[in-house]
Amino acid sequence: MTYTLILLRHGESEWNQKNLFTGWVDVDLTDKGRAEAARGGELMKEAGLLPDVVHTSVLRRAITTANLALDACDRHWIPVHRSWRLNERHYGALQGLDKAATREKYGDEQFMLWRRSFDTPPPPIEQGSEFDQTGDPRYVGVEVPLTECLKDVIPRMMPYWEDEITDDLKSGQTVLVVAHGNSLRALVKHLDGISDEEIAGLNIPTGMPLVYEIGDDMMPTGPSRYLDPEAAAAAAAAVANQGKK
Amino acid sequence: MTYTLILLRHGESEWNQKNLFTGWVDVDLTDKGRAEAARGGELMKEAGLLPDVVHTSVLRRAITTANLALDACDRHWIPVHRSWRLNERHYGALQGLDKAATREKYGDEQFMLWRRSFDTPPPPIEQGSEFDQTGDPRYVGVEVPLTECLKDVIPRMMPYWEDEITDDLKSGQTVLVVAHGNSLRALVKHLDGISDEEIAGLNIPTGMPLVYEIGDDMMPTGPSRYLDPEAAAAAAAAVANQGKK
Repeated sequence: MTYTLILLRHGESEWNQKNLFTGWVDVDLTDKGRAEAARGGELMKEAGLLPDVVHTSVLRRAITTANLALDACDRHWIPVHRSWRLNERHYGALQGLDKAATREKYGDEQFMLWRRSFDTPPPPIEQGSEFDQTGDPRYVGVEVPLTECLKDVIPRMMPYWEDEITDDLKSGQTVLVVAHGNSLRALVKHLDGISDEEIAGLNIPTGMPLVYEIGDDMMPTGPSRYLDPEAAAAAAAAVANQGKK
Repeated sequence: MTYTLILLRHGESEWNQKNLFTGWVDVDLTDKGRAEAARGGELMKEAGLLPDVVHTSVLRRAITTANLALDACDRHWIPVHRSWRLNERHYGALQGLDKAATREKYGDEQFMLWRRSFDTPPPPIEQGSEFDQTGDPRYVGVEVPLTECLKDVIPRMMPYWEDEITDDLKSGQTVLVVAHGNSLRALVKHLDGISDEEIAGLNIPTGMPLVYEIGDDMMPTGPSRYLDPEAAAAAAAAVANQGKK
């Protein structure tokens, strides 16, 4: 018995477009991002891969992507689950800063460490500052991080995979997870057994459904595939170029 | 202790605009309907009445209304529950027919009986015909009706009120229910103790949050109120005029 898991990174957000670090700041999609989301749904429909249940983060850009993608494949009516555990990694004091300016100010090496290193978090956000999420009602009972590196995302994301998503897979449902660059990288690292060193090179493009066949051991039975492989490769290259002038 | 219940009828749909009987046919909102939905969310935000959980039907016009209203009041991240029990009443063989043409063909009296009488269902839909929902994957395990009058909606809607919605109210959460003219009329009939005769005169306007304070006995502690009473009265009058030439 195999199960179907579909991962989808949200479409372009207003701060992707402006080239700002976003993290837990709850920005909206751009019109391009909305079109990407709908296209993701159309790709699932064309492939006949229709989700039975959806899991999203609690951030607007993932929620709206899920809503638009599901509407486009006529699965708007399926059960919905949300968790802060699927949120993007918290970008600490970098939240709201311009990526190119940050690269210029701190240099290529420091910039790439913060963006892509496994275990170097950005400086912590100052509590009470403009882009701090402390006190947001959606995080009641959650210890909101002040900064995160990818290594920090794994232990807060994985319980949601183990406790919630795999339960839905085991019941035979096709599961769609709509989340973020780094929460999805954390999950892909686990599923594909990617090392701490190699994960730096992995970019997940926006709006492209990534499909895994999952076995009874809740691990992939083979390599994953994008529903639109050529577009996905081009988009991943574009993500890798972010922060360049 | 009192609890807060907010009812919201979906915004204008494509078939509202075309003046067709809709029922369980899964049509989309118009741009006007999307704007109504967002306005409903803004009214909740202005009133400081923010839902902690939302319940919708499994029809696109209610789901999209909920998505847009919640986005507009920054509550896009709350838990979501859906049920066919909140669907519009099934309009039988009238689904897809023009309201004005139907009125002309069958006469005012028969037309108003089908639209507003408590216990006269339209003729049943022919199974396998264009607007029949038999076989739709969202209704697996559901005995899809072939036609319904308001009297038929009550026994399939009320278990959802009693088993699901009141549970959320009792836990102290502000509950938003986004549904349809007739599933909401069935609920309002129960809450306000409206007789079988008087319910014919009740029209619920689209996109206007209707607020109830609910007591421990899960019945209202006083009269309900629209968040925008003047607009609601004007809109209800417009609904009552549907089908007129």
